[in-house]
Amino acid sequence: MKFVYLFSEGNGTMRELLGGKGANLAEMVNLGLPVPQGFTVTTEACTKYYDDGELISQSIQSEIMSNIAKLEEIAGSKFGDQEKPLLVSVRSGARASMPGMMDTILNLGLNDTVTEALAKKSGNPRWAYDCYRRFIQMYSDVVMEVGKKFFEELIDEMKEKKGITEDTDLTADDLKELSAQFKAEYKSKVGADFPADPKEQLMGAIKAVFRSWNNPRANYYRMMHDIPYSWGTAVNVQMMVFGNLNNNSGTGVAFSRDPATGAKELMGEFLINAQGEDVVAGIRTPRPISELAEEMPECYDEFVRTCGVLEGHYKDMQDMEFTIQDRKLYMLQTRNGKRTASAALRIACDLIDEGMKTEEQAVSMIDPKQLDALLHPQFDTAALKAAKSIGKGLAASPGAACGKVYFTAEDAVKASLAGESVILVRMETSPEDIEGMNHAQGILTVRGGMTSHAAVVARGMGTCCVSGCGDIAMNEAAKQFTLGGKTYKEGDFVSLDGSTGLIYGEAIATVPASIGGDFDRIMKLADKFRTLKVRTNADTPHDAGQAIKFGAEGIGLTRTEHMFFEPDRIGPMREMILASDTAERKKALAKLLPMQVGDFSGIFKAMGDRPVTIRLLDPPLHEFLPQKESDIIALSKEMGVTADALKTRISSLHEFNPMMGHRGCRLAVSYPEIAEMQARAIIQAAIDVKKETGVDVVPEIMIPLVGEVKEMGFVKNIIKETADNLIKESGSQLKYLIGTMIEIPRAALTADAIAKEAEFFSFGTNDLTQMTFGFSRDDAGAFLDDYYGNKIYESDPFARLDQTGVGQLVKTAVALGKKSRPDIKLGICGEHGGDPSSVEFCHNVGLAYVSCSPFRVPIARLAAAQAAIKSK
Amino acid sequence: MKFVYLFSEGNGTMRELLGGKGANLAEMVNLGLPVPQGFTVTTEACTKYYDDGELISQSIQSEIMSNIAKLEEIAGSKFGDQEKPLLVSVRSGARASMPGMMDTILNLGLNDTVTEALAKKSGNPRWAYDCYRRFIQMYSDVVMEVGKKFFEELIDEMKEKKGITEDTDLTADDLKELSAQFKAEYKSKVGADFPADPKEQLMGAIKAVFRSWNNPRANYYRMMHDIPYSWGTAVNVQMMVFGNLNNNSGTGVAFSRDPATGAKELMGEFLINAQGEDVVAGIRTPRPISELAEEMPECYDEFVRTCGVLEGHYKDMQDMEFTIQDRKLYMLQTRNGKRTASAALRIACDLIDEGMKTEEQAVSMIDPKQLDALLHPQFDTAALKAAKSIGKGLAASPGAACGKVYFTAEDAVKASLAGESVILVRMETSPEDIEGMNHAQGILTVRGGMTSHAAVVARGMGTCCVSGCGDIAMNEAAKQFTLGGKTYKEGDFVSLDGSTGLIYGEAIATVPASIGGDFDRIMKLADKFRTLKVRTNADTPHDAGQAIKFGAEGIGLTRTEHMFFEPDRIGPMREMILASDTAERKKALAKLLPMQVGDFSGIFKAMGDRPVTIRLLDPPLHEFLPQKESDIIALSKEMGVTADALKTRISSLHEFNPMMGHRGCRLAVSYPEIAEMQARAIIQAAIDVKKETGVDVVPEIMIPLVGEVKEMGFVKNIIKETADNLIKESGSQLKYLIGTMIEIPRAALTADAIAKEAEFFSFGTNDLTQMTFGFSRDDAGAFLDDYYGNKIYESDPFARLDQTGVGQLVKTAVALGKKSRPDIKLGICGEHGGDPSSVEFCHNVGLAYVSCSPFRVPIARLAAAQAAIKSK
Repeated sequence: MKFVYLFSEGNGTMRELLGGKGANLAEMVNLGLPVPQGFTVTTEACTKYYDDGELISQSIQSEIMSNIAKLEEIAGSKFGDQEKPLLVSVRSGARASMPGMMDTILNLGLNDTVTEALAKKSGNPRWAYDCYRRFIQMYSDVVMEVGKKFFEELIDEMKEKKGITEDTDLTADDLKELSAQFKAEYKSKVGADFPADPKEQLMGAIKAVFRSWNNPRANYYRMMHDIPYSWGTAVNVQMMVFGNLNNNSGTGVAFSRDPATGAKELMGEFLINAQGEDVVAGIRTPRPISELAEEMPECYDEFVRTCGVLEGHYKDMQDMEFTIQDRKLYMLQTRNGKRTASAALRIACDLIDEGMKTEEQAVSMIDPKQLDALLHPQFDTAALKAAKSIGKGLAASPGAACGKVYFTAEDAVKASLAGESVILVRMETSPEDIEGMNHAQGILTVRGGMTSHAAVVARGMGTCCVSGCGDIAMNEAAKQFTLGGKTYKEGDFVSLDGSTGLIYGEAIATVPASIGGDFDRIMKLADKFRTLKVRTNADTPHDAGQAIKFGAEGIGLTRTEHMFFEPDRIGPMREMILASDTAERKKALAKLLPMQVGDFSGIFKAMGDRPVTIRLLDPPLHEFLPQKESDIIALSKEMGVTADALKTRISSLHEFNPMMGHRGCRLAVSYPEIAEMQARAIIQAAIDVKKETGVDVVPEIMIPLVGEVKEMGFVKNIIKETADNLIKESGSQLKYLIGTMIEIPRAALTADAIAKEAEFFSFGTNDLTQMTFGFSRDDAGAFLDDYYGNKIYESDPFARLDQTGVGQLVKTAVALGKKSRPDIKLGICGEHGGDPSSVEFCHNVGLAYVSCSPFRVPIARLAAAQAAIKSK
Repeated sequence: MKFVYLFSEGNGTMRELLGGKGANLAEMVNLGLPVPQGFTVTTEACTKYYDDGELISQSIQSEIMSNIAKLEEIAGSKFGDQEKPLLVSVRSGARASMPGMMDTILNLGLNDTVTEALAKKSGNPRWAYDCYRRFIQMYSDVVMEVGKKFFEELIDEMKEKKGITEDTDLTADDLKELSAQFKAEYKSKVGADFPADPKEQLMGAIKAVFRSWNNPRANYYRMMHDIPYSWGTAVNVQMMVFGNLNNNSGTGVAFSRDPATGAKELMGEFLINAQGEDVVAGIRTPRPISELAEEMPECYDEFVRTCGVLEGHYKDMQDMEFTIQDRKLYMLQTRNGKRTASAALRIACDLIDEGMKTEEQAVSMIDPKQLDALLHPQFDTAALKAAKSIGKGLAASPGAACGKVYFTAEDAVKASLAGESVILVRMETSPEDIEGMNHAQGILTVRGGMTSHAAVVARGMGTCCVSGCGDIAMNEAAKQFTLGGKTYKEGDFVSLDGSTGLIYGEAIATVPASIGGDFDRIMKLADKFRTLKVRTNADTPHDAGQAIKFGAEGIGLTRTEHMFFEPDRIGPMREMILASDTAERKKALAKLLPMQVGDFSGIFKAMGDRPVTIRLLDPPLHEFLPQKESDIIALSKEMGVTADALKTRISSLHEFNPMMGHRGCRLAVSYPEIAEMQARAIIQAAIDVKKETGVDVVPEIMIPLVGEVKEMGFVKNIIKETADNLIKESGSQLKYLIGTMIEIPRAALTADAIAKEAEFFSFGTNDLTQMTFGFSRDDAGAFLDDYYGNKIYESDPFARLDQTGVGQLVKTAVALGKKSRPDIKLGICGEHGGDPSSVEFCHNVGLAYVSCSPFRVPIARLAAAQAAIKSK
């Protein structure tokens, strides 16, 4: 097995093995571009390093050294040689770009004698010692974890002593002195001499890069971007070229197009007489790339030419690093550049127009998740730079928000009506908080995961939400919370970033969402290519309307329970729940019927001829009952019973595990009259709207939480009888479908039987995930961090569908369902319907549609198009 | 399709189609025994009746009538004929025997004119009118649901008027008068005349039998005995013979052996001049069958001969009905007789000795569930007859108990130490109640299912338990409860039947458990035939010893958490849970370590060289913390923190769905030091015991709640490192296994991956059932009755393994597990391990062992033998 490749042995298709940087360096070599020679230690060597207990095996070590020998031969120089010493850089390079997440070491190969020889031979002792002190500093930091700050302090002391302010004013002697100080510092911290042997240096550096794959920054970045830990990183060892050699040298970075706007113009920065890190370190202020044209016109021209070659070759905007040594240009890196959402859209459109990309390719090059940024307010970039976060929760609903904190829905509504921007802070939200959530700019909760009530509802509303910030010490009674060592009282400003989960203890200006023409163009293209329909989860005509604007083609899930929390509903709802017999229950249901008819009419009207799936009542009934003493007393008076009697009744409805309790279709089995009322309301509304608008409404009635076909049959019969009688009485014609959620493992396992009764399946992957994994979404927050920390899970299974376990059940159910009913309608209405990788899964297993919250509809459309293109 | 069979067209193998009674009648006809002619309407006709919306189709009606025509031809009589009227009985007969669960009608074909003609022709008007009034009464009751009591009142009035006490003293005229009164009663209740047309009578009666398949008694009986609703019942229409014709006639029932003891002697009763129902109705006292020898010796001899023929033919004890008409014997029914547990054992042994059954056949003829009755105290039969139950819960742990009610574990212990018999009554039990449960004769809970804490622990102890009696209105504060309209205070007597779930508001005498030689013989035979090993679930040396006595071959599940509730443990346990960092937690764990070593040593010693599987800590930590205000204050003082701080900490551990929360191996992922302590304790104990006793202990360490292979790997590494170091340090040799529970759907679905890390799988079918069905065992009680009522489920999936859904996951996991690790050890430790049908499933899918509570070990041994014999 080969673990080391010279650049000239590789090419651009070998990303998996060589990492992105290594593959692109090889490709640039193949393109004949000026790249200093080097080699790549493969990602497989990294995996082996971890498998071998964090050791580089002897055989890999000799493979590395034999490639060093090849470099020595090419360069005519030698490791540790005093005449012509070989110096190299050692840099990480993973399969996916992880900018700045891992580590780099420059000038490796220097030691006291080599540096002194170099100083003499080059006649540039300042450069030689500058390289040496940089190397000691980087090596100490990266390999030995001796912080940079110790060395920077020494530099500062030196500058103070000399009465100068700029690093560039340090003389050769100063730098020589500093090198000695650095080595002493190393020895005092590490307890050993700084290694003088270049081979030892090299192995230490490679090991450090491997190790950096597992540092907290890298782990966090990977989780954010769904990069598997198992990929590992490659290591690139490259002959040094020196931007800090003299004033005919320099270094810079550039984008072939503007990464902020996408405009087709070279953007970048450079420094004369500097090494790479200086450009980003902020000690010296880099100059705009355009000035390089004046400074070194021939280098600038060659760079512009090279940019053209690379864009033409990669057919995408490039992010490049270069170094100029004695007026000769060297390319050190190229990669497809990171860009903002609007730049991504503009570049994609431009590349079509420029004939560089086909429409399919252009649609495929945009990360669907990025669209979020266009649909929600964002922090003002400058304002954000100055801010420091005080804590972090889950990035539950994207966008940025800033406002004063309020601790109850009531207070939030009042403050909002008084014209204030509001952040609603709650332990967790419940359906009773809806109005307050609706009035808030942002929502912050202490408990609850990505599919908690707060998260789901906020996403539905398009409101920023950070959930499950367990570090908050909450004092609801005093209306204050403590986080990051500071206490925030009612009315204090905080800011939230729902896209990252970060919380700020101050006001940060936001800029509103903006959608432009490029967005519409790309969305139209996406619609052209995708075969998967995109529906939305919406409970109100308003949400439905919002979703249609975003391109939703129907409703995949209307949660009827949200309708019962409205102030005019909760009374009869509670009467229904607390009824002592069927007759009483029916009386209360009769009050709810006309309201539900109104609810559904509104939604049908908003949706026109688009399909609408309505789910029957799902949550356990106790969720609708008051829990607080004062509320119970108030209700008992209203109902004319004693508070004690009411408490006994409420406590008899208590459940140990409500998620697995008396809910879903189990309610309809116990109280068929509830299902009957809802079926009646749906069908009546459909008849009314059809009569009024002439639109042929075809309601899809969905039975939740089915686990057994007889259960499905039982509830279906109630619905069918009610519906058929009503349709007959009305004298009109109406088609309707009856189907079920597949959200219980047993339903998936017995989907062949269930499909005999169900005309459609909608995968409720939230609950299916909970039950397949055996953990509750509301409680998993307590341990999931430990799971990520120990790399047991690499992504939140509630955000990204677990294809190994849950996906297997989905596949089984699809196959069994189609076997019994070839034309069965299949969709998904769990939160995963808006996650790009899950959308791809849904496309691949043959679902007809995905359904997600309104603000995720564009993401789903784009992801569906990409899945269709990819699977062609 | 043929829906009606003459007896002569059928035979004994046609049970499915003809029902047990019909098949046996046909078989008796084939054997040449004296059986009145008749025909059977098939079970498929019953199914069709329900499919057709509770109607007997025209074609089936004509098929019935053409068979009536055949009967008429055979008998030379005619329906409704005044010369020779055909009279028939109509009786139900399902595939499985359901004694007394369904309905019977005799003397069908009578009306005013036929009766009068019959009276004249027979010269026995008393008989004719006795038949008529019986017919009206039975028909009214069975077909029209006009209660028997109305007619009995009329008889009582008549007897009072006439000044007589015995029915037999009623004259022909009295009975004629009664017939008229009965018809009037019928008309007043039904609103129509009593039907005079025999065909109408017949169809009404057949329909009534079909309907009786779905009456509450029948539904309940089916559920008790796992008889599927879909089977339906057959109907037998048979020419009448008359035991009430005169004093040369009579009727009786008999068993070919004693159903109470199994002794080989004819047991039975008869009445002269009576019809079948009189024997069981209790109005006249039947005479012992032996007296028939004096009364009608030739009939008696023929009956004895017939018994011999039938036993010889069926090779089992027979339960028979006969009628004598004018000194001629007719057989009306034979079936394998129901018997007590000890009779079942004796008969099985005797039949081997008599050469009637092979050992395999004898072992297969005993219902394993019956063994329960031998292992637990039972009510004294006479005392029970006089008692009336006041309510019903779940039959959670078998046996009978009688004692005074106490409402706290503490009170129960005190009363027990004072010499009282105690019934512990709780809302639900928790591990803190263990001592009280241990001192109680019986346990009664308001909440909780078949696998609730109370049920599981009681079964483990062999203590009678009725759980989940939701009808109880509990007042814990006042130490009293109300049930069946009466309030029971501390110290009041109640009695419980844990085998039926019935609760009695009085003291009922019990008889102790008794195991005899037949038991041992059958168990030895079972062991000879079974291939499945039987282990036990035991947490203490005492339980382990008990289980060994019952034949357990190892421990399949030791729940370590039960050990932490002992008074000397709970303190350090709480310190551990409330520790603010790892160091503090380790300090508390260090206190627990020696105690755990002692726990495990005790168990290893008790088990000798039998395998022992120990599960690491499983429940969520909050279960170990106090919830009551006073307990919290006490603990806060003990720990030297404020009560408020403690409350905050406790509330931060609160979970919405603890069943799906931070528990099982998730604890070990968050707090590896807990798993480490337990692994250390297990290995240390094994080393100690090996040294002390020389027995080669091979502990099996079981990781609970695994859902992902990396999770398994993570915890396994902790255990392995700890164990290997400890073994090395000790200088001894010790083998141990590390495996996992399969109790999460995802674990079953990814069992191939998990088996790469796990050396054994133990199916935790309690949790697997919960998660596959998506309902919590503690909450399902609220709706499962509605599910049984609507025939959605026919058995409790926590008692009997759901083979359709859960079983599919088990099969998948077995196949995948063996694929990755062909020698993987497979067992089950869920409660299903003691349920015969589930044991058979385990045998068939290829598990190596089942594990169940000690008192169910004999049941599992027998069930395993039956499964092995059946699958040969």
